[in-house]
Parts: sequence; C-alpha cells; structure tokens
Amino acid sequence: MEPFVLWFTGLSGAGKTTLSKRVHEALVVRGLSAEHLDGDTLRAILPNTGFSKEARNEHVRRVGFLASQLERHGVFVITSLISPYEESRAFVRSLCKNFVEIHVATPLEVCEKRDVKGLYARARRGEIRDFTGIDSDYEVPRAAELVIDGSLHTEEESAQLILDYVKKYIG
Amino acid sequence: MEPFVLWFTGLSGAGKTTLSKRVHEALVVRGLSAEHLDGDTLRAILPNTGFSKEARNEHVRRVGFLASQLERHGVFVITSLISPYEESRAFVRSLCKNFVEIHVATPLEVCEKRDVKGLYARARRGEIRDFTGIDSDYEVPRAAELVIDGSLHTEEESAQLILDYVKKYIG
Repeated sequence: MEPFVLWFTGLSGAGKTTLSKRVHEALVVRGLSAEHLDGDTLRAILPNTGFSKEARNEHVRRVGFLASQLERHGVFVITSLISPYEESRAFVRSLCKNFVEIHVATPLEVCEKRDVKGLYARARRGEIRDFTGIDSDYEVPRAAELVIDGSLHTEEESAQLILDYVKKYIG
Repeated sequence: MEPFVLWFTGLSGAGKTTLSKRVHEALVVRGLSAEHLDGDTLRAILPNTGFSKEARNEHVRRVGFLASQLERHGVFVITSLISPYEESRAFVRSLCKNFVEIHVATPLEVCEKRDVKGLYARARRGEIRDFTGIDSDYEVPRAAELVIDGSLHTEEESAQLILDYVKKYIG
C-alpha cells in the first residue's frame, strides 16, 4: 500500500466532485485512511480566494501542499478543483510522491448544457467574470495519467476506470 | 495517544522556531508521526502572502486548516507562526480537536535586542512595514494553554515545560 494524490481537474460541471466523492468512498470502504479535498468546500472554509489567474494558481498550490503533506503521512488524498493552469498543476506534481492527474474531460458544451449550479448561464449573461471555459482559460493537461470524458461513461464506469488504475497503490 | 496541534505564537525573535523544532524532534525520537509547520518556511513554499492584517489572518487560517487535517489523520502537529490576531487563532482552535496554544512571551525589548535576522533594525529604519511589535499589533492570547517567557528559561527548560504539558496526549 502506498498513498497517492488523485488530482481531479476539469471544467465546472464536468463531474469532478461526484466522481471524486465516489472514489473517496470506495477507498474508505476498503478501510484506507483517505481525505477528499473539494475546491468549493475549501473556498467556503478559507474564503477570500479570488478567481484571477494568480489567485487560482495560488489556491491550487496551497491545496497541493496540503495534499502532499497528508500523502507524506500515509493518507490517500483525493482532490477536485478546476485547477485550470499547467504551471500550478506541475508545481503540485513536484510536491507529491505519487501524483495521479485525472482530467475529467467532459466537453464544454455538455457541461454548459448540464449547468447544475446555473453558473454557465450567469457567466454568459456577464454576471460572473473569469469563469473557466467562458472568459477564462482551461489549459488541457498534457501529462494526465487518466483522461475521462464524463459524457461517454456512467459515473460507475468512470469510478471503476480510476480504481483499476490505482490498484497498484492500494493492493 | 491522541494527536494534537501545538500552536506556537509570539513576536519575531521570541524563540518560537528553535523551541518548536526542539519539541518536534523530541516527538519524532519517541517514534511519533509528527510534522513541523514553520511560518517562514511556509511563506517560502507558498509565496505571495502579504503582511496586512487580512493577509496574516488568511495565512493563519490556511495553516490552521492544514494542521487540523493532519491532526485528524493521526499526526502530531507543531506550528510556529507569529499569528498575532485573536480572531484567526480562535478560528484555528475551533478546527482542531486538541489545540494547545503556546504563547512564547519573550518581551519585545529582548526580541529586539537579539534581532537574529536584523529585522527589527530594518523595521525601525522604516525599511520593512507592518512589522509585528513595531508598526503592527500583537494581540496577547487570552486563553493560551501555556505561556513561556523565553528570557526566563533555557531552551531546554522551555521544551521540558511543553513536553510535561502534553504528556497526557503522548502517554
């Protein structure tokens, strides 16, 4: 058994949170010490984090540092953040021992159609600014360990793909 | 055995870092899973943290959140940050299970006389702004579990006082 950091990245509405929760639960059920760090939840606990490129990179760095510390102490960490920039994702990768980047690559059109939180509509109306995919960039990961298009698989299938991939760590 | 968060607070030069390192080592020697989070080190890894009241409170909240997560997963955490404001220290206390606030209460005059890093001299010359104790407040903890005046004890004595206090947690 070897702890890891499963880093979910992707657009808002891609399915990161639901998928990461499912994987987290699967690990907990196996009796592993696991932690789920979700972007929205973290922003609620630690407010005053902006959405500029710099603020997002900082946020990703901080969460990554937290994840790496937990990993160092034997915790299986799962994070779900949009984390749109290569620079800060690469920084986090450098901090972690076993970094598994999972790009939840659900197409923008699908995410926008779902629009579970109504954020895309608000971004289109200009009520929200710096919204990833609309008026803020998402840099597609070039070195993701896994790429999962949430529109092509059920949640269960996607979770299984991930659990298969990390089998080598959880034994 | 029950993990805790030992939160060292006090002026720059009060002796927080040396003392907390010593306590950390004592725990590691006992075979405990322990982590030392030092303010200066953290600022180096995660730059762009300012020194305004708001920025300091945010920094303390973030480190506190990290500490509480490690504590939750069985790690004995030791932090050393000036953490000058009651508001954010109280927030961290509320996050942690066993929060032990240690006020390293070395008097300002002594800290300034030591001036190991030459920061007080620079602050007096106006080269550094928002320096705690000079032109930025330090709110004395009202509920610290331990108060240690670094000018009245040797480092060894101070460390022993702390280890005696946490005996109930480490068995």
